[in-house]
Amino acid sequence: MQPLALDQAAVTGGFWAHMQQLNRDAVIPHCDESLEKVGWIGNVRAAVEGTLATERVGRLFTDSEIYKLMEGMAWEQARTPSPQLQERLRELTTLLAAAQQEDGYLNTFYGYEGGPARYSDLEWGHELYCAGHLLQAAVAMLRTGVDDGMATIARAAADHVCAEFADGAREGICGHPEIETALVEMFRLTGEDRYLEQARLFVERRGHRLLGDTMYGGRDYYQDNVPVRKAEVLVGHAVRALYLTAGVIDVAVETGDEELLAAAKRQYERTLQRRTYLHGGMGSYHHGEAYGADFELPADRAYAETCAGIASIMVAWRLLLATGEEHYADVIERTLHNVVAACPSEDGQAFFYVNTLHRRTPGIEPEPGVPSLRRTDGRRASWFTTSCCPTNVARTLASLGGYLATSDEDGLQVHLYATATLRAELPGRGTVAVQVHTDYPRDGLVRLQVTQSVPGPWTLSLRVPGWSGTTSITGAAGDIDAEPGRAQLTRDWAVGDEVVLHLDCAPRLVRADPRVDAVRGCVAIECGPLLYCAESVDQPDVDLDLITVDAAAGPSLEEGVVRLPAWSTSAPEHSWPDASLQSKEHAPGRAVDLLLTPYHRWANRGPSTMRVWLPHA
Amino acid sequence: MQPLALDQAAVTGGFWAHMQQLNRDAVIPHCDESLEKVGWIGNVRAAVEGTLATERVGRLFTDSEIYKLMEGMAWEQARTPSPQLQERLRELTTLLAAAQQEDGYLNTFYGYEGGPARYSDLEWGHELYCAGHLLQAAVAMLRTGVDDGMATIARAAADHVCAEFADGAREGICGHPEIETALVEMFRLTGEDRYLEQARLFVERRGHRLLGDTMYGGRDYYQDNVPVRKAEVLVGHAVRALYLTAGVIDVAVETGDEELLAAAKRQYERTLQRRTYLHGGMGSYHHGEAYGADFELPADRAYAETCAGIASIMVAWRLLLATGEEHYADVIERTLHNVVAACPSEDGQAFFYVNTLHRRTPGIEPEPGVPSLRRTDGRRASWFTTSCCPTNVARTLASLGGYLATSDEDGLQVHLYATATLRAELPGRGTVAVQVHTDYPRDGLVRLQVTQSVPGPWTLSLRVPGWSGTTSITGAAGDIDAEPGRAQLTRDWAVGDEVVLHLDCAPRLVRADPRVDAVRGCVAIECGPLLYCAESVDQPDVDLDLITVDAAAGPSLEEGVVRLPAWSTSAPEHSWPDASLQSKEHAPGRAVDLLLTPYHRWANRGPSTMRVWLPHA
Repeated sequence: MQPLALDQAAVTGGFWAHMQQLNRDAVIPHCDESLEKVGWIGNVRAAVEGTLATERVGRLFTDSEIYKLMEGMAWEQARTPSPQLQERLRELTTLLAAAQQEDGYLNTFYGYEGGPARYSDLEWGHELYCAGHLLQAAVAMLRTGVDDGMATIARAAADHVCAEFADGAREGICGHPEIETALVEMFRLTGEDRYLEQARLFVERRGHRLLGDTMYGGRDYYQDNVPVRKAEVLVGHAVRALYLTAGVIDVAVETGDEELLAAAKRQYERTLQRRTYLHGGMGSYHHGEAYGADFELPADRAYAETCAGIASIMVAWRLLLATGEEHYADVIERTLHNVVAACPSEDGQAFFYVNTLHRRTPGIEPEPGVPSLRRTDGRRASWFTTSCCPTNVARTLASLGGYLATSDEDGLQVHLYATATLRAELPGRGTVAVQVHTDYPRDGLVRLQVTQSVPGPWTLSLRVPGWSGTTSITGAAGDIDAEPGRAQLTRDWAVGDEVVLHLDCAPRLVRADPRVDAVRGCVAIECGPLLYCAESVDQPDVDLDLITVDAAAGPSLEEGVVRLPAWSTSAPEHSWPDASLQSKEHAPGRAVDLLLTPYHRWANRGPSTMRVWLPHA
Repeated sequence: MQPLALDQAAVTGGFWAHMQQLNRDAVIPHCDESLEKVGWIGNVRAAVEGTLATERVGRLFTDSEIYKLMEGMAWEQARTPSPQLQERLRELTTLLAAAQQEDGYLNTFYGYEGGPARYSDLEWGHELYCAGHLLQAAVAMLRTGVDDGMATIARAAADHVCAEFADGAREGICGHPEIETALVEMFRLTGEDRYLEQARLFVERRGHRLLGDTMYGGRDYYQDNVPVRKAEVLVGHAVRALYLTAGVIDVAVETGDEELLAAAKRQYERTLQRRTYLHGGMGSYHHGEAYGADFELPADRAYAETCAGIASIMVAWRLLLATGEEHYADVIERTLHNVVAACPSEDGQAFFYVNTLHRRTPGIEPEPGVPSLRRTDGRRASWFTTSCCPTNVARTLASLGGYLATSDEDGLQVHLYATATLRAELPGRGTVAVQVHTDYPRDGLVRLQVTQSVPGPWTLSLRVPGWSGTTSITGAAGDIDAEPGRAQLTRDWAVGDEVVLHLDCAPRLVRADPRVDAVRGCVAIECGPLLYCAESVDQPDVDLDLITVDAAAGPSLEEGVVRLPAWSTSAPEHSWPDASLQSKEHAPGRAVDLLLTPYHRWANRGPSTMRVWLPHA
């Protein structure tokens, strides 16, 4: 299966169109302004002017935010071109070209007179990580045809990395993976084998303890504890682990290395089944922003960094392409709707870094204009001292169309449902196109109409999500009861042919694996791909930590709000812990109807408490 | 109520006698050897020789370990004198005297030629923290009469602190409290009002943001966010919060400040009821070694640092003395048996820093001789890069006799039960003494015999623990059904009079507050003051994360082992999370008898999994 280019797959209405509009109108401008305000673009100017020694500001990976924003701008410029955006990209590209050193090295934290030496701290320095994002920005510009010099910068940077880290040269790896996938992307666009070979080297070197120990207890923090081929599950810092896995799959696919692909698949599968939150987020520990042990998934201490969600989508997407297994699209959809969509506030001016599933006390409104460290109190912040998430969301939303569908020689595979236009080239046969209309995810009805076809039979494939209780397809291809996975509709499609997919988006109660101790005795509510939550602003008289839901009564859905019968109790009188803890189960309390809203919308109405997992009787 | 001196209260047999012997024979020598081996005592020699600039090793608070060990040695020397111990204390004291600077300053990390300046980093520097432990070592030597010059060093150090941080001088506080309680102790022994005044100043300055921000998100990390009088609950780094509270109570008691005492009591009470683990440990976050929110008490991620347990005992002891409320003795007993006693391995050569209540996978045997960072995998380590816990346990075990009982003008109050001799002076009336015989905590029968008395009535008070279902007292004072709290037996006691306390130490099931999400649907088992746990080595064929106990069947106790009927299930087949999570509750599985042992004994038989909280049907 091959991905579609952004001009072949475009969201044209509904949920994701709204998010993409917000991204264009608010998120991207906000990131650009913020990067100027905090001086991180200024660092590049200081590099040009030779004043870094006295003027550099921010942490050592700030350059990467500029690149991620440029990547987002490039995708956005391809989606909805504007002269302003083109001009801004040109400005930034010109600035970077001036800052790049003669041998292709480009970084504002290292390698200038009076500053720390290049590659003097591979563990924490993020130099190759920043270079990787530089390449990704160039890749986006090349893919979308909005390039204006960035490709030249990226080629020089990639050549520098290859010269510096080749076999026999510096035998190092970067503490933060990212360069691996970026180099493979550059190889795909340029055809330069040495980029692929360098990515392969970085992958194979990992796990041989080339990096030093960490303050987080060991080398598993940056996946340097076990060689990639031998690892059984993702460990350590979640974003690092996932970016690495994306690169591993890229290398495996491009080199035809089945063993390597199987290793990545095995690790990610076990991670999905045992180390993933219901919203698709990953990372159970605040300490080290890391994966926990299997089934260690506390709701209240969920770290589930937004960037880890995005990185998980990157991995799932690569595995979907490499294996054709549709359940990876389920993962992408879940994570997009419940982590990525949750990140920006409704005005696109503030962002979740951490995505908790339970907030016990209302957070505090951030001080305006003061970047937060990480903001772990259930409030979004306009910027962070480590501000990876806003720009990561910007590039993801702008390029979202690319995840909708794929094509192969037999036809078109639709993976995500949105009002959209999809177009694919069938090799040697011509163009096929489909128009999708739906209110999804508010509604499970998805209409697909063929708008362009070729002679003879081809296959329109539709993903049937694992969560859909009963799924049927009606229309031109006949009436079908579809099983989770992929429904393949093969026929001589004519322009105007229509099929309708009927997904079951009624509210459903889900339980966790019994080994997830943190949510024992609880249920959560989902409707279609949307996870729901109870937020205190919808039930001011109820203490969300003293409720029991009536699972037997069942939830109902109206206007996007789920109503769920529950009991609200008062706090037990007790003294610690000798006296009362031996007492019986708590009395049920007064009956209330809990109102639940989609998780991605929470924390938009002032400080609040919230819970996803609801204790049941 | 007044504390008893160590020559008035001595454990003579049973559980704690064994622990004290282990401390003398193994823990104290191990700490001494380790301090030499890692070079932390060598740092003091380097200070004497003026070679710190090139030779200092270890983190910035290593001096404090020497002081805590000396404190432990002093208590131990009073308990069971030996010429070797006396000689070692003399050696160390002589070394410290030589290292102390002329104005009383003594620290191996700061304040020498070529090193960082004194008090240049009050946030992280631990200088006053180290000074506090220096004073505490001297206090122990003065109280036990084994002093050989340490008092002179401590007076000079305390005078230096007062001169440096007096009102109008440097308006600072230390990021890590400890100096406060130490100065009050020095005041008690020397009568120097300025020591008390300086402690009061440190307490009152706190919470006014004199310290900078932290990497842990805010100043609550070191309790500098809210003035002590206004705080509602303990927050931030648990050891810091508790050491501070000990100092606050000391200042409040010695200055007669009822408001301040009430503030400390209020904060600690809420912390006990909402932020304390069942074993008495405190600190829910690995990140920042900190308290969590109310009821945020994950079993698997319990940090519950050993030092925080000890610090909690220090606070509870002070509140017991200040208020006479016996439930603080319940807290002390719980924490001693389940945190302090758990810390050393059975051979006294390895230690728990972190005290988890749930271990999902077996840990890894530590590499011999390599200090661990913190060792969070359920294994003890012989030493740590921050090695506060071993020496803290050493001083606590050596001085344990001091927690057994108190006296006032009416008689003797027994708080902890152990085979022991207790002696008190009744002002103006003479000496009373009691001998205690018991197999406690294996058995709830405690015999107390009067071995010395005075004419006229006096009161023998016995703590009745909150956990004891039915408690009776028989013997010379008649037959009494006792309620939790304090049983006061007043009569003309004659030598040879005996009373027997019958505590209910049968196994009991306890539940957590319903707001503790992490252990919903679970029970734990306690027998007397002992918390029990299921360890994999006792049931190799059972996956402890796939059990359900039969709470109705009830536990039985034999030879210190609890037997509890349960069901063992196999792992559910599922794919994440869409398919199976909607399935019904898991089938019960095969019947097994779980074997539970006292929590403090776990992890002594090789790597294992363990759980305290057991899911029930």
